[in-house]
Amino acid sequence: MRLPKQVRIVEVGPRDGLQNEPQPISTADKLQLIDYLVDAGLTSIEAASFVSPKWVPQMGDATEVMQGVRAHAGVTYSALTPNIKGLQAALAVGVQEVAVFGAASESFTQKNINCSISESLERFAPVVSQAQAAGVKVRAYVSCVMGCPYEGEIAPAKVAEVSDLLYQMGCYEVSLGDTVGVGTPYKTQAMLEAVSARVPMDKLAAHFHDTYGQALVNLYAALNMGVAVIDASVAGLGGCPYAKGAAGNVATEDVVYLLQGLGIETGIDLAKLSTAGAFISQVIGRSSRSKVGLALAASAAH
Amino acid sequence: MRLPKQVRIVEVGPRDGLQNEPQPISTADKLQLIDYLVDAGLTSIEAASFVSPKWVPQMGDATEVMQGVRAHAGVTYSALTPNIKGLQAALAVGVQEVAVFGAASESFTQKNINCSISESLERFAPVVSQAQAAGVKVRAYVSCVMGCPYEGEIAPAKVAEVSDLLYQMGCYEVSLGDTVGVGTPYKTQAMLEAVSARVPMDKLAAHFHDTYGQALVNLYAALNMGVAVIDASVAGLGGCPYAKGAAGNVATEDVVYLLQGLGIETGIDLAKLSTAGAFISQVIGRSSRSKVGLALAASAAH
Repeated sequence: MRLPKQVRIVEVGPRDGLQNEPQPISTADKLQLIDYLVDAGLTSIEAASFVSPKWVPQMGDATEVMQGVRAHAGVTYSALTPNIKGLQAALAVGVQEVAVFGAASESFTQKNINCSISESLERFAPVVSQAQAAGVKVRAYVSCVMGCPYEGEIAPAKVAEVSDLLYQMGCYEVSLGDTVGVGTPYKTQAMLEAVSARVPMDKLAAHFHDTYGQALVNLYAALNMGVAVIDASVAGLGGCPYAKGAAGNVATEDVVYLLQGLGIETGIDLAKLSTAGAFISQVIGRSSRSKVGLALAASAAH
Repeated sequence: MRLPKQVRIVEVGPRDGLQNEPQPISTADKLQLIDYLVDAGLTSIEAASFVSPKWVPQMGDATEVMQGVRAHAGVTYSALTPNIKGLQAALAVGVQEVAVFGAASESFTQKNINCSISESLERFAPVVSQAQAAGVKVRAYVSCVMGCPYEGEIAPAKVAEVSDLLYQMGCYEVSLGDTVGVGTPYKTQAMLEAVSARVPMDKLAAHFHDTYGQALVNLYAALNMGVAVIDASVAGLGGCPYAKGAAGNVATEDVVYLLQGLGIETGIDLAKLSTAGAFISQVIGRSSRSKVGLALAASAAH
């Protein structure tokens, strides 16, 4: 056991969460959510995606969102930029940090962006270099790290290879995504062992989905291996695009409860975070997917 | 790490689950659920509670349920018997195993059954001895092992003391209940260390509620300490009586997924278990609280 003393949470609800919610959310509501999240102590917030609104209408207001967020010392708002066009739009509104989204699965990459993993990396290279030239940090996502909706098992060596190439390309952090939530503690350990042999552990983040309810237990396994950055989505925003009705991102509230119980600092106020979760759940018109959120709301009502 | 090779799951959905569901369920539906559970491979099923229907109307058909369950080699149906009257009714219909329900919290015991812990143990003693005289095994529940809805923190030493007294009384197994789901991995370790110093680990079961989404991670901590019996409730049946709208028992499907991922044998067929969960969710008219159940249903529909 070598649990980290501190963990940085990257809040992905406004982007990865809301892009997988069927309901359209107004820009004002997104900005209100982001304000709540900052108030709760979150310092890394992925706020938008500069992707074609034809493909992801939920993110069609990326420019307005990034123009609307309020500056706070120590708070970084990032945006996904899948290509040069997206990057240019992001740079035009002064985005501080961007992210590229790769995968460790050939079939997923083919179905998602119609090219091989190697071609996808070639496409990311100019996005990363132009962002860096503009003084903007780049984060990398590697999806399907513990399984793929199309080809099933993914070899840890493949995750390590793709992660290393993105890290060598200049990405400052690689977020390892269990996109379909099929991970187990042993798979988590094997995958992290392989990746951390090539990319330093302190440059890795765990981005686990809770589709099969296993996200926290896998995060606990990851924490015990030294991972100290966790992606999460307030209220468990976002579903699973590969299984309609199933859960997506792990809920930030539930992750924070786990970390608090382990004596790990996050700088986050759980009660305020639950307020953020309750707000956005009401906006999208369904109950929170965070068990902590539901329990705290029930206690408050009691 | 000393994970067990095999885990026995005690399915408590028909009792602990359904007694906390507001909707009345017909005896026929309960029996159908139990048939599905047996078909899925469950061998320990808590099927009813011989408690006053004035207090728990959901369990008013305990006699009919216990008369209706079908005998299968290797399958045990048990029932909660809070007092001598309940025990006599259970014995009258040939129940094979009964359970008594204590707590490690003085305030909880006062509010729940209006006496001290010590008085509660005095009341259980004749239930245990008369059951044993009739050749019926007795299981003990100790609730509030990681926190109490009324007094908060509970000392591990108190849990150990109550567990030991129930074990010495003749209960063959002590099920340790995190009744309000406030446990953490560290609390789980501390509690189990204290209890297993007095009651052998192979006589202990973990009965964790998922109110704050932490049940699986706490079960993982318990498994790593050698616990090999887990209580769970199909579809996550049952809510939290102390926080309306919050989750109760951990879902059996999610526990089985965890155990399968750890290479631990349970003898349970996950697909058939999900069928049981889907059936009872439809009966009570809400979606399953098992993430595995939701994900498998979504995949099947896809």
